[in-house]
Amino acid sequence: MASLSCSSDLATLINQTAAAHYLCNQFDSISRKLNDTTYAVDNTYLLFSAYLVFAMQLGFAMLCAGSVRAKNTMNIMLTNVLDAAAGGLSYYLFGFAFAFGSPSNGFIGRHFFGLRDYPIPTADYSFFLYQWAFAIAVAGITSGSIAERTQFVAYLIYSSFLTGFVYPVVSHWFWSADGWASATRSDGNVLFGSGVIDFAGSGVVHMVGGIAGLWGALIEGPRIGRFDRTGRSVALRGHSASLVVLGSFLLWFGWYGFNPGSFFTIAKGYGGASYNGQWSAIGRTAVTTTLAGSTAALTTLFSKRLLVGHWNVIDMCNGLLGGFAAITSGCAVVEPWAAIVCGFVAAWVLIALNKLAAKVEYDDPLEAAQLHGGCGAWGVLFTGLFAKREYVEEIYGIGRPCGALMNGGGKLLAAQLIQIVVVCGWVTATMGPLFYGLHKMNLLRISRDDETAGMDLTRHGGFAYAYHDDEDGSSRGVGLMMRKVEPASTSPSPRAVSQLSLHPLSISSL
Amino acid sequence: MASLSCSSDLATLINQTAAAHYLCNQFDSISRKLNDTTYAVDNTYLLFSAYLVFAMQLGFAMLCAGSVRAKNTMNIMLTNVLDAAAGGLSYYLFGFAFAFGSPSNGFIGRHFFGLRDYPIPTADYSFFLYQWAFAIAVAGITSGSIAERTQFVAYLIYSSFLTGFVYPVVSHWFWSADGWASATRSDGNVLFGSGVIDFAGSGVVHMVGGIAGLWGALIEGPRIGRFDRTGRSVALRGHSASLVVLGSFLLWFGWYGFNPGSFFTIAKGYGGASYNGQWSAIGRTAVTTTLAGSTAALTTLFSKRLLVGHWNVIDMCNGLLGGFAAITSGCAVVEPWAAIVCGFVAAWVLIALNKLAAKVEYDDPLEAAQLHGGCGAWGVLFTGLFAKREYVEEIYGIGRPCGALMNGGGKLLAAQLIQIVVVCGWVTATMGPLFYGLHKMNLLRISRDDETAGMDLTRHGGFAYAYHDDEDGSSRGVGLMMRKVEPASTSPSPRAVSQLSLHPLSISSL
Amino acid sequence: MASLSCSSDLATLINQTAAAHYLCNQFDSISRKLNDTTYAVDNTYLLFSAYLVFAMQLGFAMLCAGSVRAKNTMNIMLTNVLDAAAGGLSYYLFGFAFAFGSPSNGFIGRHFFGLRDYPIPTADYSFFLYQWAFAIAVAGITSGSIAERTQFVAYLIYSSFLTGFVYPVVSHWFWSADGWASATRSDGNVLFGSGVIDFAGSGVVHMVGGIAGLWGALIEGPRIGRFDRTGRSVALRGHSASLVVLGSFLLWFGWYGFNPGSFFTIAKGYGGASYNGQWSAIGRTAVTTTLAGSTAALTTLFSKRLLVGHWNVIDMCNGLLGGFAAITSGCAVVEPWAAIVCGFVAAWVLIALNKLAAKVEYDDPLEAAQLHGGCGAWGVLFTGLFAKREYVEEIYGIGRPCGALMNGGGKLLAAQLIQIVVVCGWVTATMGPLFYGLHKMNLLRISRDDETAGMDLTRHGGFAYAYHDDEDGSSRGVGLMMRKVEPASTSPSPRAVSQLSLHPLSISSL
Repeated sequence: MASLSCSSDLATLINQTAAAHYLCNQFDSISRKLNDTTYAVDNTYLLFSAYLVFAMQLGFAMLCAGSVRAKNTMNIMLTNVLDAAAGGLSYYLFGFAFAFGSPSNGFIGRHFFGLRDYPIPTADYSFFLYQWAFAIAVAGITSGSIAERTQFVAYLIYSSFLTGFVYPVVSHWFWSADGWASATRSDGNVLFGSGVIDFAGSGVVHMVGGIAGLWGALIEGPRIGRFDRTGRSVALRGHSASLVVLGSFLLWFGWYGFNPGSFFTIAKGYGGASYNGQWSAIGRTAVTTTLAGSTAALTTLFSKRLLVGHWNVIDMCNGLLGGFAAITSGCAVVEPWAAIVCGFVAAWVLIALNKLAAKVEYDDPLEAAQLHGGCGAWGVLFTGLFAKREYVEEIYGIGRPCGALMNGGGKLLAAQLIQIVVVCGWVTATMGPLFYGLHKMNLLRISRDDETAGMDLTRHGGFAYAYHDDEDGSSRGVGLMMRKVEPASTSPSPRAVSQLSLHPLSISSL
Repeated sequence: MASLSCSSDLATLINQTAAAHYLCNQFDSISRKLNDTTYAVDNTYLLFSAYLVFAMQLGFAMLCAGSVRAKNTMNIMLTNVLDAAAGGLSYYLFGFAFAFGSPSNGFIGRHFFGLRDYPIPTADYSFFLYQWAFAIAVAGITSGSIAERTQFVAYLIYSSFLTGFVYPVVSHWFWSADGWASATRSDGNVLFGSGVIDFAGSGVVHMVGGIAGLWGALIEGPRIGRFDRTGRSVALRGHSASLVVLGSFLLWFGWYGFNPGSFFTIAKGYGGASYNGQWSAIGRTAVTTTLAGSTAALTTLFSKRLLVGHWNVIDMCNGLLGGFAAITSGCAVVEPWAAIVCGFVAAWVLIALNKLAAKVEYDDPLEAAQLHGGCGAWGVLFTGLFAKREYVEEIYGIGRPCGALMNGGGKLLAAQLIQIVVVCGWVTATMGPLFYGLHKMNLLRISRDDETAGMDLTRHGGFAYAYHDDEDGSSRGVGLMMRKVEPASTSPSPRAVSQLSLHPLSISSL
Repeated sequence: MASLSCSSDLATLINQTAAAHYLCNQFDSISRKLNDTTYAVDNTYLLFSAYLVFAMQLGFAMLCAGSVRAKNTMNIMLTNVLDAAAGGLSYYLFGFAFAFGSPSNGFIGRHFFGLRDYPIPTADYSFFLYQWAFAIAVAGITSGSIAERTQFVAYLIYSSFLTGFVYPVVSHWFWSADGWASATRSDGNVLFGSGVIDFAGSGVVHMVGGIAGLWGALIEGPRIGRFDRTGRSVALRGHSASLVVLGSFLLWFGWYGFNPGSFFTIAKGYGGASYNGQWSAIGRTAVTTTLAGSTAALTTLFSKRLLVGHWNVIDMCNGLLGGFAAITSGCAVVEPWAAIVCGFVAAWVLIALNKLAAKVEYDDPLEAAQLHGGCGAWGVLFTGLFAKREYVEEIYGIGRPCGALMNGGGKLLAAQLIQIVVVCGWVTATMGPLFYGLHKMNLLRISRDDETAGMDLTRHGGFAYAYHDDEDGSSRGVGLMMRKVEPASTSPSPRAVSQLSLHPLSISSL
C-alpha cells in the first residue's frame, strides 16, 4: 500500500511512471527489510531478557534452599520448580488472558486463553514468555514467607490461586492497555492524568508476593523455636551460606532482564540527538538498578556491623535484594544519583521492618514480606518522588506529571499511593481469606512432629544431602545394603532415622 | 554490481545518468548497511544462543555431581569439564569437518578441518561455536549412564570416539546440506519428499547420547549394591539434591539456546503479516519448549505421588528433562497445545522405562538412556504425528508433508521412523563393539575395591568435600600437618585413608 | 543536514525540487531508522556481554568459596559481594572518570564523575556498565591471593584503592582514547607506531589483580600450616570441589562476555566480502578463547597426571582459567591455531610458577598471582608474537605492526614488553607500600587464634554450613534453643564455640 501511494505521488512529481515504480519498489523492499530487522532486534532483546528473568527462578530456588534448614531443603526447592512448571501451564491456559487479554475492561482481561488468536501485531510469543517469567516469581516470593512449616497441599492451592488469578488481575490493572490504573492505557484516559508508574513491578510483583506471604506467615504463626518463651528472637540459621550467595548473585544477574527488559523493545529512537533512544534508556535502567542494589547492600553491611557487630554476608545479600525490589518501580525514570537514595532508604526500611517483625514475633524465614513487601512499597513511593520529567515524557508521553521532589506536583505521587493502597487491599481481600480457610480446615500448617523432623524426611522422599554415605565403605555388606532398601510403604521414618545415623563415628563406635 | 545494474536501469528510465548514479549509490550504501545490520543481529542471536547451550554443560556437571554419591563427585565433574575442553579441540580439528564439511557426500563431511577455508558466506564462527556446544553435550549424556563404576581411561576412549566421529556423522546425515536424510538438503532431493525433521536434535543429540549410554551401562552391569540378591531395586541416592535442582534449572535455562537457537538466524520475514517472521517462530519455539517441560514435570510429580507416595523434587526434575528431550525434535513445527501432549506422554515414557529398567536390573545412575534415549525417540515420533503444515512450510519450504495426525499423510512419519531405526543401528554398531572391546580388555569397569571406596579417593586426588576440616583447629600441631603432607609418590591410598580419619571426633578420641 | 544537501544536490540533477525533496526525505527517514537499529543492535550486544561479565563475579565467588576451607567461606564470599557493590558506587563516583574521562591527558581521566555529562555520542550507559563489570573483577582476583588470613578492614582499604584508583589509571593508559600506550589513541600518535594490544585485558585486568595479590600474599606470609618446618608444601585443600567446578564453568561462561564483548559494537562491516565484519571477528574471538582454555585445561590434566599421579579436576580448572587469562590479550587478533599454542604454553607457565611458589614458600590459596599474573604476562607477550596482520589492521587500522613471528617486526612486541614492565612497576609502586603500611600498622593479618578458628565464626556471624543442625531434633527443648539464642553483645566467641558443639555425636555422648 505504501508502495502504491509512493508510486503515484512520485510519478506525479517526476512524470515518469516506470522510474517512479522502480524507485518505490526499492523503498518498499528496504522498508520491509528494515521492518524485519527491527522485529528481529526487539525480539532478540526481549527473549534474552525473558531468559534472564527465568534465571531468577533458579536464584530464588538457591536462595530459599540455603536460607532454610537442611531438613526442609527438598521441600522448598520443590515449590520453586513447581512454580515454574505449574505457572507455565496455568499462565498459558488463562493467566496471560486475565492479565493482557485486550481489548477488555479495566478489571480483568478476556482474550488469548490458551494463546488463541495470538500473536498480534503489537505482542509476540516473546512477550508471553517474558510475562510468564514474571508471573512465576510471585509465588516464589510468597513461598519464602511460609517456608519450613506449610503443608504441600496448601502450597498447591494458594500458589495456583495467586499465580492464576490474584497476580494476573493486578498486572492487568497496572500494565495492560486497558487497566484502570495503567500509565500506558490505549485510550489515554489515565488515572489523575498520570497513571501509576510501576515500571517493572515493585508493586505489581514484589508487593503482591510479599503481602501474600505476610498473611500466610501471620496466620500460621512462627516456626517452632523461632521465639523463646520470653518472646526473644532466636535465629534459626539457614543451612548453606554458599547457596544464599549463589542465589543472590543469580537474582542480581536476572534482575538485568527484569528491569531493563521491561521496555520490551530496544530499537526506538527518542528524537533529539541521534544517540538518544530506548537503547540508552535501557542502559540507564541497568545502571540505576546496579546502583540501588549496591547502595542498599553497602548500607546494610555497615549498619549491621554497627548494630550487631558482624560483617555478615547474608544480611548484605538481603539488603542487596531489598534495594533491587525498591528500584524496580522507578528504575527507568530516575537519575542514577536518585537510585542511590532509593537503595539507601530501602536498606533502612528492611532493617526497621526486621526489628518490628522480631518485636511482634512475626516469623518470615526469607524476610520476604519485609523485603519484597516493605522495600517494594518504598519503591512505589520513591518513583512518585524522584521520577524525572525528561525520562517520564520519553517513555510515557509528553505532558505526563513527574516526581513530587522533581517539580512534578503531586499527581504522580497520588497515583503511586493509590497503587500501594489498592495492592494491599486486593491481596489482603483475596489471599487473607484463602489462608484463613486453609488454616481452619487444618490444611495450612504441618504437624509438630513433621516440623521437628523436617518435611524432607516425612513428605519428600528423604534428606537432601548424603555427604558421608560413602564413609561406611569399610563396613560394606548385606546389612548395609539392606538399610538402604527403599521402603515399599510410604512410611519413611525408620529408614530416615537409619540414614541419619550413617555417620562415621557411629560406625567407629560400633 | 547491483549498483551498476541499478544505475543503467534507472538512467534509461529517468534519462539522467548523474541522478541515476546518485540514487543508486544511495541504495547501494543503504543495502550494504542493512546487510551489515542483518549479519550483526543474526550473529548476536546465534552467539548468545551458543553461550546458553554452553551453560547446559555446567547444568550437566551439577546435575551429574548431585546425582552420584559424594565419593564419586570429583570423577563425574572431571568428565564434564573434560567433555567441554577435549570437545573444543577435537571438534575444531575434525569433528566439525565430519559434520558440516560441505560440499560432500551424504555420509560424512570432508572440509573445514581445523577451520581451514572457513568462514563461508552461509556460516560463520558463531555457527561453529554453536555446533561445538551441541557436540559436547552428547558425551555428557552418556557419562551419566556409566557413572560411578567406569575407568577413566575408558571414558577418554569412548568420549573421543563418540564426540569426534559417531556424533558428527549422525549430525551430517540429518542436519548438513548434504546429509542423506536431511530436510534441508541443498539439492532438494529429500527422503520421501520430506526429509527427517529433527529440529534441535531429539534424535541427533539425545538418542545418540542415550543409546551409547545404554550399551555402556548394559555391558559393565549395575553398580555394587544397586540390586539386592533377590533382584530388588535399591536406591543409591545422589549426595546433593541442591546440586540436582541447580543443574536441572541450568539445563532449562540453556535449553532456550538449544531449541530456539537452532534457527541459527532471526532476521528473516516469512511474508504475510508484517509481524510474521522467524523472530515469531523462535518465540513460539521457546513457548513449546517451556510447555512440554512443564507438563512433563507436573505429570511426573503427581504420578510419582500416586505411585510412590512422595512429592519428590528429583523425580520432578527428571520428568522435566524428559519433556525437554522429547520436544527438542518438533519444537519449531508444532502448536503450543501439542507441546503439552508431547510432555504428558514423555513423562509416562520415562516412568515406564524406569520400571522396565528396574525389572531387568539395568542400572543407569542418571536415567540417561531412559530419559534421553527413550523420551528422545518419543519426540522424533511425536514430530511425525503433530507437525503443523503452516510451520513446516515456513521453515522447510512450501509443499513439504506435515504430521500424520495433522492431515499430513505418512511421509514425514515414515522419515521419522527411519531416523529412529538408523540412529539406534548406527550407535549400536559403533559404540556397542567399542564398549565390549574395552570390557574384554578389562579397561571398562573399575575394581570392586575402587568402587566401594569411591573413585575420588583412589583416582582423583581426594574427596570432593571437607566441611569439618576446620574443627580440628583446636589440636593444631606438627602431627596434624604431617598427616596432610602431599604424597611424593603416586600411590594415593594411605593418604586417602588418613584424610578420611581427619574427623574432629576421631581427633578428640585420640 | 544530510537531507538538505541531498535535496539541493538531487534537485540540481533531476531539476525537480519537489521530487528531490520527496526522495531525500525517504532517504533521511531510512537513514534515521537504520541509525536507530544499529544503536539498538550494538547496545543489545554490549549490555548482554556486560551481564555475562557480571556473571563472572558469581563465578569468582563460587570458585573462591570452594577453594578455601569451610571455616572461611563466609569471609571470602563477603569480599566478592562487596567488590561488586562497592565497585558499583566507586566506579560511578570516580573510577569511570579516572579511566575514560576524555578528553584528558595520557595519565588519568578527568570527566564523567558521577556520570556527569554522560552519555556521549560514542559511549552510552552500556559502556559504563561493561567497564564496571571489568573493574570489580580486579579486586576479586587479588582477594584470592590473600584469602584465609587477611583482616576485613585491610580488605576494605586495599580493595577501594585498587578498584578506585590503581586499576582505573592502568585502564586509562591502555584503553582510553587519551592513554599514552593505547592502541586506539584518538590522535593516532601511538607508542612505537603500534600501541599496546591488550584487547580484553591480560595485562590491564589479570596482571593488575595478580601482581597486587602477589605483594599482599608475600607481605603477610603463608597461612598457618601451609609449609611444614622443613619447608615442605602441605596442601590445605578447599572445602568443596563442586563449588570450584561451578565457579570455573561460570567463569568460562562469562568469559564469552569478557573477550568477544570487548569489541563494544557488532554492527560494523570490514569491507571485502559482504559477510566479513565485526560479527565474524567476534565469533572468531569466542573460538580462540574456547580453544586456548580447552588446550590449557587438557595440557594441565595430562601433565599433572604424569607429575602427580592423579586425574585432578581442580588442577584442570585452574589450567583452564590460566588459558583464558592468557588469550585475553590477543583473542581478537590471532588465528585459532595460535590460540592452541597460547593455551599450551599457559598451562606450563602455571605449572612452573606453582613449582616455584612451593619452593620459595609463597602461599596463594587461589594461585591467583601465578594464574592471573603469570599467565596474563605470557598472554601479553604472546600477542606480540602471534598477532596476525589482517586482523590487526581490521581492528586497529591499516599499517599497524603485527606479531614478531608473523612477519610483523619487533614494534608490537616491544610495546607489549613495555606493558609488562609498566604494569608490574605501577602496581608494585602503589600496592606494595599500601600492603606494607597495613602490615606495619598490624591491620593486615588476622590473629593466630582467628586464623585457626576461622574467620567466619569470629568475625562474620557464624559458620557457613549447618547440614546436621536438624539431627538434634530428637533432643529439642529449652536447653537447645538457648544455645542458639543470638548474642546481644558483639563478642561472638562463646556462641561460636557452642555452635560447633552442636554435633550429633557430641550430643549422643552427653
